[in-house]
Amino acid sequence: MSLDETADRPLDRLATHLAADMDAVNALIRRRMASDHAPRIPQVTAHLVEAGGKRIRPMLTLAAARLCGYGGPYHVHLAATVEFIHTATLLHDDVVDESAQRRGRPTANLLWDNKSSVLVGDYLFSRSFQLMVETGSLRVLDILANASATIAEGEVLQLSAAQDLATTEAVYLRVIRGKTAALFAAATEVGGVIAGAPEDQVRALNAYGDALGIAFQIVDDLLDYGIAGDGIGKNLGDDFRERKLTLPVIRAVARATPEERAFWVRTIEKGDQGAGDLQEALRLLDRHGALETTRADALAWAAKARDVLGGLPDHPLREMLDDLASYVVERIN
Amino acid sequence: MSLDETADRPLDRLATHLAADMDAVNALIRRRMASDHAPRIPQVTAHLVEAGGKRIRPMLTLAAARLCGYGGPYHVHLAATVEFIHTATLLHDDVVDESAQRRGRPTANLLWDNKSSVLVGDYLFSRSFQLMVETGSLRVLDILANASATIAEGEVLQLSAAQDLATTEAVYLRVIRGKTAALFAAATEVGGVIAGAPEDQVRALNAYGDALGIAFQIVDDLLDYGIAGDGIGKNLGDDFRERKLTLPVIRAVARATPEERAFWVRTIEKGDQGAGDLQEALRLLDRHGALETTRADALAWAAKARDVLGGLPDHPLREMLDDLASYVVERIN
Repeated sequence: MSLDETADRPLDRLATHLAADMDAVNALIRRRMASDHAPRIPQVTAHLVEAGGKRIRPMLTLAAARLCGYGGPYHVHLAATVEFIHTATLLHDDVVDESAQRRGRPTANLLWDNKSSVLVGDYLFSRSFQLMVETGSLRVLDILANASATIAEGEVLQLSAAQDLATTEAVYLRVIRGKTAALFAAATEVGGVIAGAPEDQVRALNAYGDALGIAFQIVDDLLDYGIAGDGIGKNLGDDFRERKLTLPVIRAVARATPEERAFWVRTIEKGDQGAGDLQEALRLLDRHGALETTRADALAWAAKARDVLGGLPDHPLREMLDDLASYVVERIN
Repeated sequence: MSLDETADRPLDRLATHLAADMDAVNALIRRRMASDHAPRIPQVTAHLVEAGGKRIRPMLTLAAARLCGYGGPYHVHLAATVEFIHTATLLHDDVVDESAQRRGRPTANLLWDNKSSVLVGDYLFSRSFQLMVETGSLRVLDILANASATIAEGEVLQLSAAQDLATTEAVYLRVIRGKTAALFAAATEVGGVIAGAPEDQVRALNAYGDALGIAFQIVDDLLDYGIAGDGIGKNLGDDFRERKLTLPVIRAVARATPEERAFWVRTIEKGDQGAGDLQEALRLLDRHGALETTRADALAWAAKARDVLGGLPDHPLREMLDDLASYVVERIN
């Protein structure tokens, strides 16, 4: 069975189970990303929102709420909220990364300009803020405010940690929580909160989203060094060329001989890279078992995600979330 | 009496009256703009927050709350909130405008980079969001969420209206509400709401902030065409060179002869400007009375701001807000 065939299976099952809810979320997203006055806004957001991401974050919210027996209308608002926050961060990320492509299409900052990406991102943040206020839940607002701060802090941290060989595993973890896990955790947690789930279930939902997000991001960083041997979805070595301190490199640097350290200083800190350097980096990662131990970490986070699901009600959606955690690490397993 | 001598007199009186509250606001701002993990954040924000803006927005919140008899702690949170939102928009504006200076100092995007300005702006937005959630008032959150959306929409609108001679007065009003008046209005309104003021007073506070902000921005746009004859605080003709459709130009364009219209098309739409064009623009503004009618509008908005104060309790702070509305238009009066 090829990777393509299994690709989105757990997400597809979630999408099927949650189809009616997702229709409502998509309709709400389309309504709320519109602007009567500034036509540039729906142009930019439609380009991105309709480009067909997997909608994993809103599905996490819907799944968490339904799994906890929610029957009200506000899980739809919260699902749209997390997708808006995600889309806003993508718009700002593209400015920060000076990206030219996202999801195989030109980025908004290339099609329009950086200005539009910054301001339309701000607009989507403010729209997400209005949506969550409509739920009338101060606790939900508190969770999402804290997640927003973690996301923003993680982004700044990533910027200042880039090309810095002193970056520790603790900093890496903080960066990927900001980049991915904080919004995953908030997405699942608010689903439980809006459903009025008991505290232990809310905590389990937060822990699930957090562990799933961390596993997801570590796998992403591993694939960049081609651990699956096919490099699907990413260009092998992009992170190396962009001099990013991801977990495998942090571990290889920690175990480096003086000579190896000189290699990392030249290629990552100074950015002086030439032919054969990526191969040498891969050799050093392999020599210190950096890919293998990082892979073990990803598997452990996925196992943790599955484990905490035990505290949630028995439900077909719980099985799908369990499968999703397995799927996230399938590409490196 | 020169303009410098009267310069900040009403703001100075407000600052004196509210000194203890403002100390608390400044302390809270310093605490909340810090980050244990990303030292870049306090560097960038300190550069801007400590640069000594007039703190007019937080003072509006404090004045509104105290004027309505508030005795609790949350007006300080809300004052810090509006200053954070303002600072975040300044950071993003500097990226959008590609500015090199703000308040006489190099902008953050010049000292660090656009990336830091975008991400630290996002961080301040998220911190403002946490601060307002702490007040526990859903109504305050609703007001600030709506203000955020108006601000962001206005910014995008300004971007797409730039250099567009079809820009109407209604669009101009929407742009300056987004740019200035929406946050002024939210700043005063939340002060009344947190104080539990009666509905008619809350409405009056919103109307005061709105009218004050509009007057403030129209005056700013007038000074750019040197109506006060001294051009203090702005470089005469900046808006013309940047091809902005401000109210005086919108009015002159509406009354233009075919020949005059060709001038505006060339200088504003096409950006083909040469020696003598600013003088010609000023001649056309004068010919159609565009500066005079715009000045009358600014005075009318200031009068409206003073007028609505009649619905608020008799209080020394009410007198200071009244003086502030007069002061805002003093430069063109």
